[in-house]
Amino acid sequence: MLKILLMTGDAGEAQEIYYAKYRLEEEGWQVHIAAPEKRAFLSVVHDFEPGFDTYTEKPGYRVEADLGLADVEPTSYDALVLPGGRAPEYLRNRPNAVAIVRHFVESGKPIAANCHGPLLLIVAGGVKGKTLTCYPDLEPDVRAAGAEFVNRDVVVDGTLVTVRGWPDNGPWMREFVRVLKGRAGAESTN
Amino acid sequence: MLKILLMTGDAGEAQEIYYAKYRLEEEGWQVHIAAPEKRAFLSVVHDFEPGFDTYTEKPGYRVEADLGLADVEPTSYDALVLPGGRAPEYLRNRPNAVAIVRHFVESGKPIAANCHGPLLLIVAGGVKGKTLTCYPDLEPDVRAAGAEFVNRDVVVDGTLVTVRGWPDNGPWMREFVRVLKGRAGAESTN
Amino acid sequence: MLKILLMTGDAGEAQEIYYAKYRLEEEGWQVHIAAPEKRAFLSVVHDFEPGFDTYTEKPGYRVEADLGLADVEPTSYDALVLPGGRAPEYLRNRPNAVAIVRHFVESGKPIAANCHGPLLLIVAGGVKGKTLTCYPDLEPDVRAAGAEFVNRDVVVDGTLVTVRGWPDNGPWMREFVRVLKGRAGAESTN
Amino acid sequence: MLKILLMTGDAGEAQEIYYAKYRLEEEGWQVHIAAPEKRAFLSVVHDFEPGFDTYTEKPGYRVEADLGLADVEPTSYDALVLPGGRAPEYLRNRPNAVAIVRHFVESGKPIAANCHGPLLLIVAGGVKGKTLTCYPDLEPDVRAAGAEFVNRDVVVDGTLVTVRGWPDNGPWMREFVRVLKGRAGAESTN
Amino acid sequence: MLKILLMTGDAGEAQEIYYAKYRLEEEGWQVHIAAPEKRAFLSVVHDFEPGFDTYTEKPGYRVEADLGLADVEPTSYDALVLPGGRAPEYLRNRPNAVAIVRHFVESGKPIAANCHGPLLLIVAGGVKGKTLTCYPDLEPDVRAAGAEFVNRDVVVDGTLVTVRGWPDNGPWMREFVRVLKGRAGAESTN
Amino acid sequence: MLKILLMTGDAGEAQEIYYAKYRLEEEGWQVHIAAPEKRAFLSVVHDFEPGFDTYTEKPGYRVEADLGLADVEPTSYDALVLPGGRAPEYLRNRPNAVAIVRHFVESGKPIAANCHGPLLLIVAGGVKGKTLTCYPDLEPDVRAAGAEFVNRDVVVDGTLVTVRGWPDNGPWMREFVRVLKGRAGAESTN
Repeated sequence: MLKILLMTGDAGEAQEIYYAKYRLEEEGWQVHIAAPEKRAFLSVVHDFEPGFDTYTEKPGYRVEADLGLADVEPTSYDALVLPGGRAPEYLRNRPNAVAIVRHFVESGKPIAANCHGPLLLIVAGGVKGKTLTCYPDLEPDVRAAGAEFVNRDVVVDGTLVTVRGWPDNGPWMREFVRVLKGRAGAESTN
Repeated sequence: MLKILLMTGDAGEAQEIYYAKYRLEEEGWQVHIAAPEKRAFLSVVHDFEPGFDTYTEKPGYRVEADLGLADVEPTSYDALVLPGGRAPEYLRNRPNAVAIVRHFVESGKPIAANCHGPLLLIVAGGVKGKTLTCYPDLEPDVRAAGAEFVNRDVVVDGTLVTVRGWPDNGPWMREFVRVLKGRAGAESTN
Repeated sequence: MLKILLMTGDAGEAQEIYYAKYRLEEEGWQVHIAAPEKRAFLSVVHDFEPGFDTYTEKPGYRVEADLGLADVEPTSYDALVLPGGRAPEYLRNRPNAVAIVRHFVESGKPIAANCHGPLLLIVAGGVKGKTLTCYPDLEPDVRAAGAEFVNRDVVVDGTLVTVRGWPDNGPWMREFVRVLKGRAGAESTN
Repeated sequence: MLKILLMTGDAGEAQEIYYAKYRLEEEGWQVHIAAPEKRAFLSVVHDFEPGFDTYTEKPGYRVEADLGLADVEPTSYDALVLPGGRAPEYLRNRPNAVAIVRHFVESGKPIAANCHGPLLLIVAGGVKGKTLTCYPDLEPDVRAAGAEFVNRDVVVDGTLVTVRGWPDNGPWMREFVRVLKGRAGAESTN
Repeated sequence: MLKILLMTGDAGEAQEIYYAKYRLEEEGWQVHIAAPEKRAFLSVVHDFEPGFDTYTEKPGYRVEADLGLADVEPTSYDALVLPGGRAPEYLRNRPNAVAIVRHFVESGKPIAANCHGPLLLIVAGGVKGKTLTCYPDLEPDVRAAGAEFVNRDVVVDGTLVTVRGWPDNGPWMREFVRVLKGRAGAESTN
Repeated sequence: MLKILLMTGDAGEAQEIYYAKYRLEEEGWQVHIAAPEKRAFLSVVHDFEPGFDTYTEKPGYRVEADLGLADVEPTSYDALVLPGGRAPEYLRNRPNAVAIVRHFVESGKPIAANCHGPLLLIVAGGVKGKTLTCYPDLEPDVRAAGAEFVNRDVVVDGTLVTVRGWPDNGPWMREFVRVLKGRAGAESTN
């Protein structure tokens, strides 16, 4: 059974958090949600409404964090999920969050990032030379970090699976499950 | 490629709609969302918050209906998805919605229902003698309709897959995909 | 002085609760609000807005419960009021709530129910063979319980007074007061 | 059958509008709601919540205006109802609204005012020398206008019936109905 | 360095509070926010939206009160700021608030009032014989108190600076700073 | 009279927009608000509330855009204001917005940026080698762009004036006005 870490917190995007959690649990894998502290936090609903030039934000679902960032042992997890929303913006300034992401980047373990999730990858040195997608308005950040941005529903580069937002949740998890199973298969044949 | 109909509308539960849609599309299947009219409608966020004796309701995500109820040809679909929220309460009083559900019930095609979704099954004669689950506060309605209610994360009775709410989205779709694949396999061997 | 019990709780409909309470108090009668616990709870505003296929829900007024369900002695009350909203859906699954309603049904004491309020009557065996009205989308539940549904502003069947929603608050209380006064008159003449 | 005019508009208090309307209709009387224009307007929910030093305001129920101020013929009505909320603050600056109120004041027809409703009476010259109550924070305005303020659930001074807010809706209408019936009786005996 | 008192509380208008505070601090002056109690309170957003006949109200910014009304020593301040919103309506009924305002009125110290702020001046006897402006719907209150109302972006009468609402924040503080500097200059030359 | 351009749009931060506009107008200067289109747009309230790990977002004030981006002639303005909120994130991906900012950067005209406003400067090549501040969670972006980040209430580097958020509105405009006046003085002496 794979163990997967999902890192988010207050203002994380509701559907991106819960789709990933339930989808990966469908496979029989264990998903732990890590947030700054082990408590219930509030996700947000990011949506697109006529007559507004960017996404709107409304209060979303409560989410129960399984553990706080200080209690995460990254080596005990096989993969990392980084949902979007506004959580990645502040998580990337918390050293323990960055150290956790860096573990997954450096060990080459699979990472799934959605929307603003790649902001966390950038500070952890995880996008340089990579091809990826993300919320399109982050293209300047991704390019500045040395990655190639592609505006497509899903981009798989090695073990990194990225999408643009929750409307791409399907391709996101379809490819991430494929990567995780492929890896599990490869390992079991060794 | 399977074609699947998802019936909901204003006040349908946000996560139950989108999880089913994206999850089934992951399999390469086509999902059509039918609502009273072909337009964007507003889903709701049903959640559980401390100090409130039932679920809370907040505005959710916009959802684009692919077609209105009047334009649904049920025979062209292989399966039916009935998300919850407050949409099933009024859909069950629209004769064309009931006729559509009845087609799936009578033809034995797979049906996935979540939370308040079984309200639509009841009026279409689809639960008598069945074992199922649903939002637990609907137990009296289910029993009155001649079904056995079980409070469990997911119940599969033949081709009917039912769960209690969006926190059971994972088991819901895991079993529904299994049913749909099993059926597809059975048919292809015939 | 009559003593009247009003049973509701979180998500009960705001106007249906307060109209009944203040209207009956106008007559010099005592109204006790019973909810799952003796505390302030939050009612909801159910309304109808253009472009939405069912009622909308917004946060309503705070309501102070006079007593919790566990402390209700139904025999000390002369009549029962069941406002609507979403409270009846969960109250009907609480055995002490059902037992309370059953007392009024079996003793033939007057009952006023509004909108979703009849859901509580159904589980307490109080509608079989009766003619009543309620929120029209509940027609299937009422029929399944053996009652005749009539879509009219107010229906009086013996001591049971039912209406469709808060827009019928006037006829609701007009008839309920008439029933209560008639009964009081009948009793005083005995 | 009495004809009663209820004057309010956007930001009028929800319960004060609807309680008066439905309560007076219970008596078989006709209630016309007049607002600046004949259209659906939005009432507000004024409530009291812990930790906030005054009433809170939330969006309330939609209300259908039967006629615009320009179309009101005050002589055709037997009585006037002035609910509170924030509508009286701006209505008192519309000359046609003030002229309407003045008709009722000068003709001695019954007037029921709630909460901020007396603001309209003041500008129409209807409180000088009167004893009345209102939302207690308006005491300075009432005194400045030459009236005596009493902090009591309901005050009847001749044909003027005033209360402090929607929690006093019961006494408000109980006394107003009494005044109207007394007057009708007096007139019929003449 | 001037010391300035700003008096408001829950439901004070957000922009009127913060514009005055930050603007006066720009000059190197000290601004103390006094509210009923020393705690964080919630301001409101008053705005104008199409299709609504008065201002709308939404939850605003949190504001930290520097001190409670009971702890204000008015003689230690050089000037007073009275933002609008709904706070002045209840503050004028608190004797300690009125006593504070009266000190500034009687000592002739500069006062800046915005929107509903002049309600506090009226009860403290600070407008009689003055010319001022305010939220235009308060014209009757101002006139009744013996002041002349002018509908203009800003009115300076001696050391009293008044405006109609936050859209006049610029002229409000421009003139108030001018008055304060002029006075400081006058005093230093004495 | 100086002419100043303020660039923002839907989801721009309410106080940062209006404080700058009114403050600069106090000086007798003309401020034009440019947004993607010339229409009323909706600002947001970004605030800090206990128990939430980042800023919260609520609907703010409506703002009237004086002109659309396509109609801006940057050479006709003396200075540029870039408020924060979520508007800079998408404005920086609109070529005409970037071209406008670049004009001010390259011509050395004064620029005031607040909170997320520097995101627009980065893509326009305006921060390399500069010292500045901004919303602290943007430190990685600023550093990646070759600027030095300082966490201080206001930073002035040549004609660039930056602050961290609306709580620093006072220092923001105090310094920006100083820069603008100094420049005007320098020019007038030439």
